[in-house]
Amino acid sequence: MKTIFSEDHKLHDGTVELIGGTLVPSFECPRRAEIVINRVRDQKLGPVIEPTRFGIENAALVHAPDFVKFLSIAYDDWEKAHGDTVALPIAWPGRSFSQRVPDAIDGRLGFYSFDAGVPLVRGTFPAAASAIDVALTGLALVTGGERAAFALCRPPGHHATADQMGGYCYFNNAAIAAESVTRQGGRVAILDVDYHHGNGSQAIFYDRPDVLFVSLHGDPKQEYPYFLGYADETGVGRGEGYNLNLPLPWGTAWDTYGAAMETAVARIKAFAPDTLVVSLGLDTYMEDPISHFRLDTADYLRMGEQIAAIGTPTLFVFEGGYAVEPLGVNTVNVLTGFEERMRR
Amino acid sequence: MKTIFSEDHKLHDGTVELIGGTLVPSFECPRRAEIVINRVRDQKLGPVIEPTRFGIENAALVHAPDFVKFLSIAYDDWEKAHGDTVALPIAWPGRSFSQRVPDAIDGRLGFYSFDAGVPLVRGTFPAAASAIDVALTGLALVTGGERAAFALCRPPGHHATADQMGGYCYFNNAAIAAESVTRQGGRVAILDVDYHHGNGSQAIFYDRPDVLFVSLHGDPKQEYPYFLGYADETGVGRGEGYNLNLPLPWGTAWDTYGAAMETAVARIKAFAPDTLVVSLGLDTYMEDPISHFRLDTADYLRMGEQIAAIGTPTLFVFEGGYAVEPLGVNTVNVLTGFEERMRR
Repeated sequence: MKTIFSEDHKLHDGTVELIGGTLVPSFECPRRAEIVINRVRDQKLGPVIEPTRFGIENAALVHAPDFVKFLSIAYDDWEKAHGDTVALPIAWPGRSFSQRVPDAIDGRLGFYSFDAGVPLVRGTFPAAASAIDVALTGLALVTGGERAAFALCRPPGHHATADQMGGYCYFNNAAIAAESVTRQGGRVAILDVDYHHGNGSQAIFYDRPDVLFVSLHGDPKQEYPYFLGYADETGVGRGEGYNLNLPLPWGTAWDTYGAAMETAVARIKAFAPDTLVVSLGLDTYMEDPISHFRLDTADYLRMGEQIAAIGTPTLFVFEGGYAVEPLGVNTVNVLTGFEERMRR
Repeated sequence: MKTIFSEDHKLHDGTVELIGGTLVPSFECPRRAEIVINRVRDQKLGPVIEPTRFGIENAALVHAPDFVKFLSIAYDDWEKAHGDTVALPIAWPGRSFSQRVPDAIDGRLGFYSFDAGVPLVRGTFPAAASAIDVALTGLALVTGGERAAFALCRPPGHHATADQMGGYCYFNNAAIAAESVTRQGGRVAILDVDYHHGNGSQAIFYDRPDVLFVSLHGDPKQEYPYFLGYADETGVGRGEGYNLNLPLPWGTAWDTYGAAMETAVARIKAFAPDTLVVSLGLDTYMEDPISHFRLDTADYLRMGEQIAAIGTPTLFVFEGGYAVEPLGVNTVNVLTGFEERMRR
């Protein structure tokens, strides 16, 4: 399959994040994408192509216009107030606050985010905009007749909601691709295999019967993002029944994970989408520094095979995964597992 | 006037906070209270007394029982998960999240807070519980007939809402004292002169006609807490007309501030409370490191005179102020200004 990749991802380097009460180097770093593209090339997965320019206006497919506008100017506003440092929010509108948008950049950063895991540097917006182009270029290949494509997006996207960034995510690349399918009259499913629940994708499509969201993830009772991803969240209104969360406990290894994947696969087959979007996070890996599943490198081959068995044209959208050195092998294993199944 | 003070405040030392993208030593530090109590003694303001034990059950006067319970066990739970480090939240329930309380301590920290400015150490809960006793001991003096008392509370309280901590605040000492007045059948006003809007106090009493909340503060358009404190927030339901916000721009000096104080004083006189609770923050001072007003040391004498002119028995409750060395002089100037006016 083809891989879509842009060097523009490097423009986003958040440098630091707050975890366990201390500032540490960002787990979500440019090296992640470099490791993966190197492995794609080494393994000769297929051609690596540059994204077509679809444009930032596509962010509005799933994001609020004021949120898109905010992200486009946030760093400039921060620099005017604080100089050329990493922009981080410091306060969020809690339960008893108004929903007014403050003027100060520090306040707007909080209004448009739900955590401090979204460092903004000068290059964050162009990198995030480029990731949308990467996703939509991959989608065009898939809707144009290719069996699959790999959109090597960075920064990732699945935590980003209609109007809040969080968890390393700014624009929701997978959701934008999925919504693009529906705008073309198609029926789409999102399968989210990132270790963390894709709260943004769920929330964006929660009332929609034309977009199925299925996610396997660390149980939010125990794990980030904590406030969404429970099994009883099944959709609302016309979207009731089109949201399937499969939360799994710490320590989950392939025996349990593979069985949950079978449940996910069956649900997606029953939905019979025209296009499948996979939010491909690799932080289910046993050595991931911030996660607690026990998948091994060979398990990703099996995951790819299971996804291929759905039998639907598939766009893989890169999400998380923070055990950086094994990330290339694990990612490409999903894709080669998928292709090997196709060849059988 | 008497000062109520407990050495237990020292149990809370948050050590670090995140500001401008870096971790810095906490502005809200034990030295703040030490500087003030030393000045109280040096100036012979009056007797310094230990608090009576009123007990943590008084937190429930304004706080949700589950929030109080959470704070009582949060550090133990954190230590089990992360060892003896400073507990900080990392994610908050944004607009599109459920309102479920997660099991994991990291998730509960986010559920019960609205920012990361609330470091929890082993001594935070006992210190915050002690601050409630300090406030209620001071209140008992005032409702018992004394003209005024100074509750040297630490940690501060006015940002804490019914069920969320934030901005260095855990339990809302001033609100607890105010609610205690109403439970005794009294009529109470809160005058909040901290540089930052007392969002917790406002939210707790927003629908109440028996508690007047008046605040002078940095305009939330520009300034923390950003999402509350606007002039058009005047109360709701039966509380309509009993909330007066006087937001002031960066650079405000005494000429403007003193005039706004006259407006506040007039409103409180018209309300005719039995008891006045003053949330006494000194971060309006020109050298405060995180604030932007221009009050000078002598201005605090005038502030005290204005408060005395209201003519109501007054409980001063210590809140913010981060220019540590001048904090003693500035705080005691408000109190001596008050007393001098009384003697005239």
